[in-house]
Amino acid sequence: MKSYSAEFKVRTRAAMDFVNITDKILQAVSKSGVRDGLINVFIPHTTVGIFINEDESGLRKDVERTLLKLIPERANYAHDEVDYNAHAHLKSVILSPSTTIPINDGKLMIGTWQSIFLAEFDGPRERRVLIKVIGAD
Amino acid sequence: MKSYSAEFKVRTRAAMDFVNITDKILQAVSKSGVRDGLINVFIPHTTVGIFINEDESGLRKDVERTLLKLIPERANYAHDEVDYNAHAHLKSVILSPSTTIPINDGKLMIGTWQSIFLAEFDGPRERRVLIKVIGAD
Amino acid sequence: MKSYSAEFKVRTRAAMDFVNITDKILQAVSKSGVRDGLINVFIPHTTVGIFINEDESGLRKDVERTLLKLIPERANYAHDEVDYNAHAHLKSVILSPSTTIPINDGKLMIGTWQSIFLAEFDGPRERRVLIKVIGAD
Repeated sequence: MKSYSAEFKVRTRAAMDFVNITDKILQAVSKSGVRDGLINVFIPHTTVGIFINEDESGLRKDVERTLLKLIPERANYAHDEVDYNAHAHLKSVILSPSTTIPINDGKLMIGTWQSIFLAEFDGPRERRVLIKVIGAD
Repeated sequence: MKSYSAEFKVRTRAAMDFVNITDKILQAVSKSGVRDGLINVFIPHTTVGIFINEDESGLRKDVERTLLKLIPERANYAHDEVDYNAHAHLKSVILSPSTTIPINDGKLMIGTWQSIFLAEFDGPRERRVLIKVIGAD
Repeated sequence: MKSYSAEFKVRTRAAMDFVNITDKILQAVSKSGVRDGLINVFIPHTTVGIFINEDESGLRKDVERTLLKLIPERANYAHDEVDYNAHAHLKSVILSPSTTIPINDGKLMIGTWQSIFLAEFDGPRERRVLIKVIGAD
């Protein structure tokens, strides 16, 4: 068995921001030397999520508006008495900070239209992304 | 370490359709020869999700109605100017295209009432499902 | 490759209850002897979910209220004619029963503010949690 770990940083640019991190994940798969296995992407923050979908500017707006409609920024949240970002935690609960994707023949098996996004809900900030690849070379 | 990859196709039958793929996953676990490990199920499409729950006809209707209530088919989505399926992408963002399940003693460790569903949001279509099993034999 | 399996039980105390299971996960990582790999946490029940977030009492209330707002307890659900807990299944569909977290140098790589929660939606009950660690020692 082979394993490979990496970490990179992402600078987000707005209160809510979706950063396409697919190229970073592809680089990690390539560097890992794993030809057959799994890659896990994990974000060690509580006001961030991961999602996989198409990178289209209209759709980015739709994701933002939908999340704001489902979980408004202000709604008499109890956590807002401690820290003024309850809505960001709640969005992170819905879009979890972990995803796992297969690697076949050294290739990340995402589909043609799939990109991997770090979803910032309490930015702008610098965020860490952890990568772990395990499998066979 | 042992690894096993498989892929199968699913034909969905409606615009929104939940297809129970548990038998296919059980077959993959059996064929893999892995007795102790993890199975990852990944769908390389952006208008599809995976969920694990009970396969009961009333509940299928409730999942459909709940997702339609949370994310209506039409809501002046920006992506609908590009392709008329923004709502399907948004449902896919909420129900991610990846899940991972443990295997103990060659057995998929889902509970008695758990089935694994491919959730189609922009059908009917033919969809691909990727399986990766890693572990020890 | 090394693998390790464990199972523990959680007693939930209310209809909706969020139990911080981080210590149990840390114990499993320690017992596994795996220094470099992945841990998967899987709950074999259909009215339970997993989420990762901050353990703060106000935020727990916000998560509960938000989930109740998005998926009310009663809404003429079809599954309620079979069993009176459709809303609990629907919450479980949204917060899936599986998550995967990296292990580096024998350490669970959750962030400073991240705790792992079993989310009960149809309690109080006794629930099972399955752990699988795979990697290298």
